[in-house]
Amino acid sequence: MIKHALTVTRSDDFAAWYQQVITEAELAEESGVRGCMIIRPWGMGIWERFQRLLDDRIKALGHDNAYFPLFIPISYFAKEAEHVEGFAKEMAVVTHHRLKAVDGALRPDPDAELAEPLVVRPTSETVIGAAFNRWIKSWRDLPVRINQWSNVVRWEMRTRMFLRTSEFLWQEGHAAYATADEARRATLEALELYREFAQQCAAMPVIAGEKPENERFPGAVSTFSIEAMMQDGKALQAGTSHLLGTNFAAAQDIRYQNEDSQFELAHTISWGMSTRMIGGLIMIHGDDDGLRVPPRVAPWQVVIVPMLRGTPEGADLLAYCDELQAALVRQTAFGEPLRAFIDRRAMKTATKRWSWIKKGAPIVVEIGARDLAARKVTFIRRDRLYGEDGQPSNASLDIDSFAGQAGMTLDELQQGLFDEASERLERGIRRDISDLGALKEHFEGTKHPGWVEVEWARPTGADLEQIVGQLKALKLTLRNVSMNAAPATGKCIFTGEPAAERILVARAY
Amino acid sequence: MIKHALTVTRSDDFAAWYQQVITEAELAEESGVRGCMIIRPWGMGIWERFQRLLDDRIKALGHDNAYFPLFIPISYFAKEAEHVEGFAKEMAVVTHHRLKAVDGALRPDPDAELAEPLVVRPTSETVIGAAFNRWIKSWRDLPVRINQWSNVVRWEMRTRMFLRTSEFLWQEGHAAYATADEARRATLEALELYREFAQQCAAMPVIAGEKPENERFPGAVSTFSIEAMMQDGKALQAGTSHLLGTNFAAAQDIRYQNEDSQFELAHTISWGMSTRMIGGLIMIHGDDDGLRVPPRVAPWQVVIVPMLRGTPEGADLLAYCDELQAALVRQTAFGEPLRAFIDRRAMKTATKRWSWIKKGAPIVVEIGARDLAARKVTFIRRDRLYGEDGQPSNASLDIDSFAGQAGMTLDELQQGLFDEASERLERGIRRDISDLGALKEHFEGTKHPGWVEVEWARPTGADLEQIVGQLKALKLTLRNVSMNAAPATGKCIFTGEPAAERILVARAY
Repeated sequence: MIKHALTVTRSDDFAAWYQQVITEAELAEESGVRGCMIIRPWGMGIWERFQRLLDDRIKALGHDNAYFPLFIPISYFAKEAEHVEGFAKEMAVVTHHRLKAVDGALRPDPDAELAEPLVVRPTSETVIGAAFNRWIKSWRDLPVRINQWSNVVRWEMRTRMFLRTSEFLWQEGHAAYATADEARRATLEALELYREFAQQCAAMPVIAGEKPENERFPGAVSTFSIEAMMQDGKALQAGTSHLLGTNFAAAQDIRYQNEDSQFELAHTISWGMSTRMIGGLIMIHGDDDGLRVPPRVAPWQVVIVPMLRGTPEGADLLAYCDELQAALVRQTAFGEPLRAFIDRRAMKTATKRWSWIKKGAPIVVEIGARDLAARKVTFIRRDRLYGEDGQPSNASLDIDSFAGQAGMTLDELQQGLFDEASERLERGIRRDISDLGALKEHFEGTKHPGWVEVEWARPTGADLEQIVGQLKALKLTLRNVSMNAAPATGKCIFTGEPAAERILVARAY
Repeated sequence: MIKHALTVTRSDDFAAWYQQVITEAELAEESGVRGCMIIRPWGMGIWERFQRLLDDRIKALGHDNAYFPLFIPISYFAKEAEHVEGFAKEMAVVTHHRLKAVDGALRPDPDAELAEPLVVRPTSETVIGAAFNRWIKSWRDLPVRINQWSNVVRWEMRTRMFLRTSEFLWQEGHAAYATADEARRATLEALELYREFAQQCAAMPVIAGEKPENERFPGAVSTFSIEAMMQDGKALQAGTSHLLGTNFAAAQDIRYQNEDSQFELAHTISWGMSTRMIGGLIMIHGDDDGLRVPPRVAPWQVVIVPMLRGTPEGADLLAYCDELQAALVRQTAFGEPLRAFIDRRAMKTATKRWSWIKKGAPIVVEIGARDLAARKVTFIRRDRLYGEDGQPSNASLDIDSFAGQAGMTLDELQQGLFDEASERLERGIRRDISDLGALKEHFEGTKHPGWVEVEWARPTGADLEQIVGQLKALKLTLRNVSMNAAPATGKCIFTGEPAAERILVARAY
């Protein structure tokens, strides 16, 4: 039997396993500040890779980065009514601008109370809309396309690292267009950007589609999402794109003069992806030995562990590691220079090996005296950790072959992780359930029920709320209507009316 | 007489000129949120270049990026006494976590008051120190080297864009070492990183040296800075590196077990550089036509303006611009692919030309029908804007020569900006003033007095405070003791005692 690196397995307790991966892979930790986590270097390194790859794509869409204030006056929120309703309940409020020592303890200084309290941004539509109001005068100024990398705060009562924290990091794209058509097209382009990024970079297969009315961003006309399936069968919304229509433009008076000199409201959109993606990465690619990071987003793709024993031969060993690293960084992987690291820490080889396995470095190399003598490289592939005998399995190649093949191996590893997750997603969606009883039975009677795509009549308002309530009792939520869903042909599973489309139903994070 | 692009010149009113450059170059604008600015795409593009170039250097020093909470509980600040004293007076305080509609207006919900108020980080020594306390157990764990890119808030009563805003962006390096020697060496390495970055990337000559006691970071043993001279002769502190000794380690119990299994306090350091650098860039390289961005940090190094007239020939013109852009991005400048942009906006050519001149794009190309016919490129170098006749001067080259020489031209432009500023710095420092009367006379009687390097006895405590007060009456401050200062040979200009070293005195931002 295999003795895995983690003490909790996925099948034992998925939630505890998730938390242990985060701890053992040194991705993040509790900060001591309520609801806020510390993102440790390995977690941050993954986020930096996400940032670099997303940023290139965002710029290619024509968006420029800009930076808007952290603080938003309360009055800005009052303008878009639905938006207030959706966000007002969970924001951090700054009321004072100075501390004072009172009886030996620091307290907010009563003489430094703000006339208008400031909200720590939960999202930036209001403050960016106010800038759009100033920037946009004529059709010549459109489109305006902005992106912001920032921290946002949404006060959360129950937090879970990466998935739901009071403060998180994200990018938010914001744009204004002259016409409804352009705005809708751009909303879908952003959705496609997320789909492509998730699949190609994070090796995360997703379903892109439109959210139902009850899951729309507060103030939006339509909200689209990409949804990924975790290994416990639950859904994770991994990125959203919102068509805001003229709702925010009307609230903030974002008007332009058209070619006939008439004033029209601009059409705005916004879209965001956050550090939540790292939570998804863990739950899609992790195994009972820790995380497996897809090579394209791995801070280090090859980690070299010299088997140092504090003997004089150590210097030769390190020189050989340097040579290997130099040979590797001359290679390319995914069109970029390969990223290789030498772990020189004064620790036991086994400790270092397992620390990188738990972190999920794609390839871990161990160099000992015999490798040096034979100019060989002994390595472990993170996706093929155990041999058929249940023991950690390694392979050996001469140094030139190893370096020469490294890029291709990483490619293969990336594709393997994607294929594994894709197969799981495909297998995990039931499309043959057409009555509520069978739906209930499926979710209550199956250990990993996955998702069910059902036909429905796309009800709205109170009718929809009632269905949402029914599903909630089963711990289920409506996810999205896939862009690739087959047309509806039967009856609505909830109302019995003729169905309008097919929607995904699932438990979700 | 030259008619410049700005309505205020540097010699008319330097402060108003600074503000006009920011507006006309679209670097930043007021946000409507007290003390917070919006960094617009061109300003953010420069900051992104700073980030990329600094981040590479920071990683080469062995620091990993991480992310720590925005909010810090008040109690964390109470631990390091001097640190509280230095920061407690100007912090944003979060006291509530929910809003409530009261009489139709949103207010902090009295039922959602935090038990312990949270401070929006003014800097992160306290919260990172708490993590170091957990992470550091043994000598094997040292050094720990972290960097954070983040927003920080220090409540400011009088703000000036980029130079002093309540919220600003920065990087903060934090590290812990086993010995005092290692910590001191690392503090100076960070200082050297800043010096090299400022000079090589921002073309900003600086004086690196140690700050006097009164200018130390609250809680530090020594603070070092790089100081740059603005065109009005004032000094700008453009980056600081702090040796914290064991002060923070003692307050936060950051101890490690040494090789003899005994517990010792770690030695910590911190260092930071912020968006303030952009203010420096403006005041060092700007001229009466706007900003001049050193090519190495310019978001776009070559901007191509097609002279479109809405005629069918426009398509050929754009195709030629595309060809030129493609030829340029195949070139390298400063070891990176050259950055070239085509301005396709539906505006008059002159408007577009001057917008890029005011923004300070290093090379602006204008392509008209004649250029296309002759396969020529007509361009303006931002550092040679006017010919001897006082008219905007352009040059023309065939397309291959232009593209082939572009990298070299940018190199030359970068060096030219640095040389110009270096000469100004060298010319701007007086080293021959040895009595207080002459110092006073120099600063009161000269329009651009620049800096004076004086000999002093390095007084401390109350003696130093008295001198600082004397200087303050003359609007002067002590800047730093240059690492390259000549040894002191005479008497202290303030006390008449034998001098210990030479220190820079200047007006400052």
